[in-house]
Formats: sequence, C-alpha cells, structure tokens
Amino acid sequence: MAANGTTAPRRTASEYSELQASRLGFSLPLPEVLRNSFQVVDGPPSSAAGNPDEIAKLFPSLFGQPSAVLVPGVTSADVSNQSLKIGVVLSGGQAPGGHNVISGLFDYLQERTKGSTLYGFKGGPAGIMNCKYVELTIDFVYPYRNQGGFDMICSGRDKIETPEQFKQAEETAKKLDLDGLVVIGGDDSNTNACLLAENFRGKSMKTKVIGCPKTIDGDLKSKEVPISFGFDTACKIYAEMIGNVMIDARSTGKYYHFVRLMGRAASHITLECSLQTHPNITIIGEEVAAKKQTLKNVTDYITDVICKRAERGYNYGVILIPEGLIDFIPEVQQLIAELNEILAHDVVDEGGVWKKKLGDQSRQLFEFLPQAIQEQLLLERDPHGNVQVAKIETEKMLIEMVEAELGSRQKQGLYKNVFKGQSHFFGYEGRCGLPSNFDSNYCYALGYAAGALLQSGKTGLISSVGNLSNPVEKWTVGGTPLTSLMDVERRHGKFKPVIKKAMVELQGAPFKKFASVREEWALKNQYFSPGPLQYVGPTSNVTNHTLVLELGAQA
Amino acid sequence: MAANGTTAPRRTASEYSELQASRLGFSLPLPEVLRNSFQVVDGPPSSAAGNPDEIAKLFPSLFGQPSAVLVPGVTSADVSNQSLKIGVVLSGGQAPGGHNVISGLFDYLQERTKGSTLYGFKGGPAGIMNCKYVELTIDFVYPYRNQGGFDMICSGRDKIETPEQFKQAEETAKKLDLDGLVVIGGDDSNTNACLLAENFRGKSMKTKVIGCPKTIDGDLKSKEVPISFGFDTACKIYAEMIGNVMIDARSTGKYYHFVRLMGRAASHITLECSLQTHPNITIIGEEVAAKKQTLKNVTDYITDVICKRAERGYNYGVILIPEGLIDFIPEVQQLIAELNEILAHDVVDEGGVWKKKLGDQSRQLFEFLPQAIQEQLLLERDPHGNVQVAKIETEKMLIEMVEAELGSRQKQGLYKNVFKGQSHFFGYEGRCGLPSNFDSNYCYALGYAAGALLQSGKTGLISSVGNLSNPVEKWTVGGTPLTSLMDVERRHGKFKPVIKKAMVELQGAPFKKFASVREEWALKNQYFSPGPLQYVGPTSNVTNHTLVLELGAQA
Repeated sequence: MAANGTTAPRRTASEYSELQASRLGFSLPLPEVLRNSFQVVDGPPSSAAGNPDEIAKLFPSLFGQPSAVLVPGVTSADVSNQSLKIGVVLSGGQAPGGHNVISGLFDYLQERTKGSTLYGFKGGPAGIMNCKYVELTIDFVYPYRNQGGFDMICSGRDKIETPEQFKQAEETAKKLDLDGLVVIGGDDSNTNACLLAENFRGKSMKTKVIGCPKTIDGDLKSKEVPISFGFDTACKIYAEMIGNVMIDARSTGKYYHFVRLMGRAASHITLECSLQTHPNITIIGEEVAAKKQTLKNVTDYITDVICKRAERGYNYGVILIPEGLIDFIPEVQQLIAELNEILAHDVVDEGGVWKKKLGDQSRQLFEFLPQAIQEQLLLERDPHGNVQVAKIETEKMLIEMVEAELGSRQKQGLYKNVFKGQSHFFGYEGRCGLPSNFDSNYCYALGYAAGALLQSGKTGLISSVGNLSNPVEKWTVGGTPLTSLMDVERRHGKFKPVIKKAMVELQGAPFKKFASVREEWALKNQYFSPGPLQYVGPTSNVTNHTLVLELGAQA
Repeated sequence: MAANGTTAPRRTASEYSELQASRLGFSLPLPEVLRNSFQVVDGPPSSAAGNPDEIAKLFPSLFGQPSAVLVPGVTSADVSNQSLKIGVVLSGGQAPGGHNVISGLFDYLQERTKGSTLYGFKGGPAGIMNCKYVELTIDFVYPYRNQGGFDMICSGRDKIETPEQFKQAEETAKKLDLDGLVVIGGDDSNTNACLLAENFRGKSMKTKVIGCPKTIDGDLKSKEVPISFGFDTACKIYAEMIGNVMIDARSTGKYYHFVRLMGRAASHITLECSLQTHPNITIIGEEVAAKKQTLKNVTDYITDVICKRAERGYNYGVILIPEGLIDFIPEVQQLIAELNEILAHDVVDEGGVWKKKLGDQSRQLFEFLPQAIQEQLLLERDPHGNVQVAKIETEKMLIEMVEAELGSRQKQGLYKNVFKGQSHFFGYEGRCGLPSNFDSNYCYALGYAAGALLQSGKTGLISSVGNLSNPVEKWTVGGTPLTSLMDVERRHGKFKPVIKKAMVELQGAPFKKFASVREEWALKNQYFSPGPLQYVGPTSNVTNHTLVLELGAQA
C-alpha cells in the first residue's frame, strides 16, 4: 500500500492558505489560436540533433515526421466529434506547473472533445506499467489549479525501457482503450515517451504519445521548445533567498556566503540566479569544463576575488555554485574513478600505503582536499560500492579550501582579514513552489496544446509553445518531433537514443551578458534583491533573464 | 578602513529590483494619535519583572518611573518649538524593518521638530563609542524606506558596559550635543540602553535614551510590547520555504525533511512556523526543558511518529527543530560541561581511556551520539578551548539518531520502510527580507513614537505600540519603562540587570493551540503552504498566529 509517491491524500479546501486559495481563481488566458477553432498543419520534414541515420534506424516509424503548427481554421470533421480516452503521467522530479499541464489537458478534453475520459497514472511511469490510475474528474482536478507540487497523481523515476516493460505499457493502453498518453517529464522521460510512441505505432496500436518539457534545471530546450516549465518559478524562489542573503552579507559585513544551487547537469539555474541577483562570484560548470579548470583553479579564483575585495574594505560577499560543479572537473572524475577501483579491491590502511595506488595527479588532488571530504570519499559508498559524489557538499568543501588558501596567503602577508564562510543549499524549496504567473500560463498552454495534438492524431511530438516574449494571446502553439531533438550515445556496445541536455552555451546571450558584468559585480557591490515572487502588481508578469536574452538573441 | 559592518556602500536606485522600487512608494499609515497633535500622559508608577529592590539599586534615577501614553491633545508649548539633536543606532542581528524605525524617527523630526538633526551611528554601539556617524538627510534615508537589511548605517554586537565605554559614550553625546539617542535592539541592547539612560541622567546630562524592540527571535516582548519587529517577516519567509518543502515531501513520498530554524534562545519562530504550516512534528525547546527530556526521548518521539505514519502508508514528513534545541536538554549541557573540563586537562587517547572520566550519564549520552557529532565535540573548539555547541547541526544529528533507532526497530520487525532524511537550515534568508506590510507599518510607528517620547523629555523607555489586532489607525502609542521589564541575574558575585527573554509559555495561547492539534498533524497530512509573502492583495495584511493568539488571549 505504500509504494513511493502514490499515496498522497487528496487536497481539500481546508488545507489551503489564503494565497493558495486565491490562486485557484487566477484566470488562465489561452493563446489566441487555442481560443477558437484551429487546424493542425505540418511543417517541413525533420531530421535529428545528431547521427540522423542511427536515429532513423531506432525510430523507423517516426523519424523524419514534420513538426505541427496550430493555425486558425476549421477543425476537420473526422476529429471534431471524437471522444477520446487519454492518459497522463508525471515523470521525474517536481517542477512548479505540472498540475497546470494536467489542468490544460483536462480543460481541452472537456471543451473540445465531449465525452472524453482522462486517466492520471499514479506515481510516475510505474503507474502505467502496473495500470495504477485514477479517473480525473472536474472535482479531482480543480483543487490543483495553479498549485505547486506533483501530488495530484504523484511522480516517479521508473523507466519504461525493457521489452517486458513495453509489454506492460501496451497492456495498460489496451485495457484502458487509450487513444493517447501525455508524458510530462525531462530529457530522459521524453526520450522514453518517444520510444513508447514508436513502439505503439510499430505495433499499429492507436495510442498516440505526446511529451511536455518539464525540469527546473532548464536543460531541456531547443529552438522550438524555448524553455522547460518550472525553471522560471524555481529560479525566482532561489533568487529571493539569495537576494536576502546578500542584504544580510552587506549589513553584517563579515561573512562570505557560499550558496549551492540545485541543477546537477547544467548550470542554467546558477546562471539565471546570478543574472537576477548580481553576486560577487558565480561558478558556471560549463565554463570550468571548457577551460579544463582544476579544483585549485576554482579555489584560487575565489580567493583572488576575496583578497581584492579585502583591499577595498569589503570583508563579505556572496558566491553561487552549481550543484554539479565537481562533475565538470576532469581531475575530480579521474580521482573518483581511481578510488572506486582501489576501494573495490584493496583495504584502506591507516598508514596510507593504499594512496600509492593513486596516480600522481589524483594523489595530489586527494591531499589537497579537506579532511572531511577525504573521509567522505573513503567512507560513504553507494550500494554498488561507489563513491557518492552527489553527497559531497561542494559549498562546504570550497569554504575549507578557500580558508586554507587564505591562511597561506596570510602567512605571506597578502591577506589580513578574518574569513568566515557560511554555507547554504537551495534545492527542495524551489521544486514545489506555487507556480509563477508565467509557469501557470505556460503549463496551461502546454497541456491544452497536448490535447489538441492528440486529437489531431499526432504522436511522438513534444508540445511546443513559442513566441514567449509576447503576451499570452500571441503565443504560438504546435508540436516538435521528439526525434528531431535526439542524438545517439554508445552504451554497452549499442546505440541508445538520447535527447541531449541543453548546457549553458558559453557563446549564448545569457552567459555573455554575465561575462560582460562579472568583474564589476566581483569588486563593486551591485547586489539586486528580487524579493518574494508576487502574483499581483507590477512585478507579477516578468519572466526570467535566460528566456528573455535567448529570445532576444534569436530575434 | 574595513571595520566590520561599517563599510556598506550607499544604495542607489539602479540597484533596486522592481519589487524593491515599488516598496519605496508604499504609503505608511500612522496611528490616529500620531497624525494630529498629542500629549504624553503618565501611567501609574512601575516596578520590575523580578527583584525590584535590586533593580531599584541598579537604576536609582529611573526605577519606578511611570509608563507614557500618547493621547490626543495640545503639545505643550515648551517642547513644540524645540529643535533636537538625536542619534540612532542599530544593535545586534538584522531584523526586517530596522530601516523603517529610522524612517519613522526621521519623519517625526522633520514634521514635528523643525531644524532637528538626526545622526546615524555606524556599525552598532561601537559607532557611539568611537563617534563614527553620518548625518541622516532625506536623500540618505529615503532609499531605505520599507527595505530589508540594516545596511543604511549597519549594526554591530559591541556592548557599552564598562566605565571606560560609558565615558566614551558620554563624550560622543557631549560632542554632538545630543538631546536623545534611540537604540534599536534586542533584550541585551535594551538593557544597555537603560544603563546608558541611567548613566546620562545620573550625571545630569540632557541626553535621553529610548529603546525599540528588535529581534526576529520574538523573545523580547511583554504585555505592553506585544511583539518585537522582524519576527513577522522572518517567520513568513521561513514558512514559505517550509510550505514548499511540504508539498515536495508529499509529492515525492520518500523523504523526511528535518528543518532547523533560527532562534537560539526561545522557540517562538519554530512554534509560529508550525502554526503557519502544520508539519508532522515540531520540537519546542521549552517543552523539552519543562519535561526534562533527554536526546533519546526526542529521538524516540520522532521515531514513533515515523513508525505510526508508516503504518498508514506515509513514508515522508516534515519536522521542525529550533536552532537552540540542545541548549534545552540538561544532559547535553552536563556532557558539554564535563567535556570542556576533560579537554582542558587531558589528552583524548585513541583507545578511549579518557571516556572513563565522564560521569555515567554523560558517557552513555556520548556513546549514543552519532560518530560525526562525537568528533565535532572533540575536535571543534572555540578560542577558549570550549566545545562549540552552536556549530552542531542538530537536524543532521537527529537524522542520524532516528536512522539508528529505526534500524534497530527494523531488526525487531517493527519498521519495514526505507528512511531517508533531508536536512535544511533556514536562518540568514529570513533576517534581511523585505519587511512585510505589518513590519513596515509597525516599525514606522515605533520610530515615530520614539521621536515623540524624546521630544517630550522621556528617557529609559522602550517605544511601545499596541492594540495591534486592530487597523493601524487604532494602534495605541506610548513608552514602557525598561526597568519594568528587568530582573537581576547573579554573575561573578554581582547582580546584573537583564531583560528576561520571553520564552514560549506552555500555558500560552500559541502553544496550547499547537498542542491541541499536533497529534492530528502528526498522523494525517494537513500541510499548509502560505506561499511567498505578498505585498498587494488579500493576503498582504495578515500578521502572524503568535500575535493574534496572544492578543486574543489577553482580550
């Protein structure tokens, strides 16, 4: 009875705060094209993000299909009176707005396909495989409108990838007589959605599959999918906290705050929060990797800024660090690989003889690490015996390394202040916040569009809403072939399709903007405190710098 | 040039976010009595919170003076045309609203005492002693209106308490020809303010001293000072984060979030956040102390709730812990005292022979602690060689202890789930947030009232604004004798005056409300997510549960 994430009790009105209750009534505008009757027209044929020949082999029925665009017109007679049976699933980590995707899909079916049924699969993809679902009615869906979290039907991290799992999914699709399935998820989940679409079509099943771009990390995006939902809200929540910490730093005048931000693969969140708040130092993982920096390089950079600030009389500051920083540092990856090997076969002796098995570079790096981190690397292992990189508190590690470096500069008379570091990790606070007006509207349109794409018989597309720098009524709506976002990776001797994570582009507008001002931010104090996310008033409809800069760069 | 907290550069408009800029224009309503001309009338004579005889000896000129109440009337001619020279100082940790106290004081002087001068002492009480100040002009003050932080003049933790320090303060008062001084601070700072008032009066100096109640911890309050400023905003910021984490917990279904909240001495913040969010478990330090609970008791209580929730299919939850928890546990205090003694004289041998020097109870407790905490107790010491209790991450310690207890219950077949703890500390994020409408208004009234009290020649009072459950116009305004809040403590063989910290009252309305619902909150999920603090709209003028319940209980 207690499978993960499938037992959240229904929400009731008595559980709502005044703000949550007021958000229920927030009216969700639709893009103009979705307000009236529309046609779905095809764009040109598509290819793949890389290795089109391999993608074509992996997706023989779907590869090359055109993108879809909704334009005003008369919906063709053969679909307009259909009633549909549709399933929807939330996959992976929470992101603000997921409930609105479901609300948009639900409203589409209610308004455009009378007599339709919407099933919510519970607890993520496992709900599809085990046929655990709930029929979504107006009473069930309404209390989640414009609300954070994924608890309406909960989520999960299972994947549908083995032949047996595909079989289970087929059985569920047949049992529920599904015309369509909407998969709300990140890059992996959308890859899986596409495999499922291919599998259904290959077996001539009627079930169509449409994806929706979800992840606070912001690393699922392309020209046609300008942003994944949740990124906007999460960054605003983190930026509120960072802005507060900045004012604290400036008022107190004696702490360096090291703030680690969620986002393991890409540093979009860190970059966006930096653009929103103007910290003294921001480490971007992609830059560290591109410049092949070492941990010592990063430490020295931070220490240099601290020393320069000390000369100006500032003994405080704020430093942003992406959660995934150490994954970007080649020497750390090398050390961990060597440690995994040694720890699997040898005993770690007190005398340290085992260290001789490390390569020169790895041994030097190991000795450079603070003792607490050394112990963590040696002691905390996952069930496979591997070092648990994810558990390393990078912000605390950097504080210790900077402290050591400052200590040695102090001995040389190069630094005279007292350094005090404060560590923070902002993560879970942002994943389930009440969605911003932008995420509320964007998700509603994504869900509504997914309904339209399914009704018109599309499959293997990701719901795509564009023209986002304009007011909602002018947003464009369509679907992008998931295969067009894919490349292959070689794993265990086979090609596997993957949607490449969109990393921070060092030539992209957001990074270039940041790079052009960071030296000023480092030495002067140009802290910017966005304050708490507002739902009413002048600040309630701003989006985020990353989106605005990227769209501006495209225009 | 780089003394702590005195070097914050002036804010400029270009540094303001849209929300900060819009807050500059927020119109601050004054209580009715402050809008027109008023008289200051005396209440009955006062006594002390305890040991009035000793307080009378310590404050011969001030003891027994009446409280002051502002009522409509004609300001007496001998004060109405005075121009004044006033100093103001921020003392101790930041609390949202400090800038508005200064704004209120500034506006009072501008509007009611033409030709007056306001000096802001920089970097806290040290600024008084060193005569470091800035003249506060409209251009200087205005950009900080309704803004968080203390960076207008910065704060500090120095105390004015030795004869030499009093002498320095006298010199500054004379040099600047001060008619008055406003001290914005917590219990210690207000005690100091009163000593300074006594000292000035004892020496027949004209400088009067008025205090203002500041602390996010909420532990400076009395019947006449219903709340300290900053508490309202800070709790709302923490409650936003806790509410988000709750929705995350419910959506994910697999984590117990242990949230440590700022507030070392009293658990008001934890209690208020609990009332705002309805977590599964809330530990209130005062209750732990009253019931003489051990760390094992606390661990067992948490573990019991986790096991009962597991039976209901819930493998997740949210637990609030006050920062000062371990200070409330007598056995921990005992262990630390013994450790300080042993570590001062003996070597900690690897074999553990040193442990035999611990008493039985302390040795058992030490063995019960997680290894990381044991090491922290032995290794991390302050400059006096003492164990650094403040550095112990209580939330992580509890996670480890609960994990160990669940492990042993698992072996007995009493628990079957997988426990995963996530730790959080919410502290600095709340101290410098943009003040809520309540804190903005309350602080403005406190500052304005301080001006009125100084103009009417009062000293040794704390600015007191009451009737807070009514709209601002109906708020009452006056001053409470600081001596009436005082008791004595015996230190180094002498009586020292102290304003007793207001602890959570187990018979008080807020705790009783909490106690009446906590069992339901523990097992059912009645999570409540207040969302981000709003400045416009229906939720923008709510205050906090603690205040409402306490005022209700008084009515």
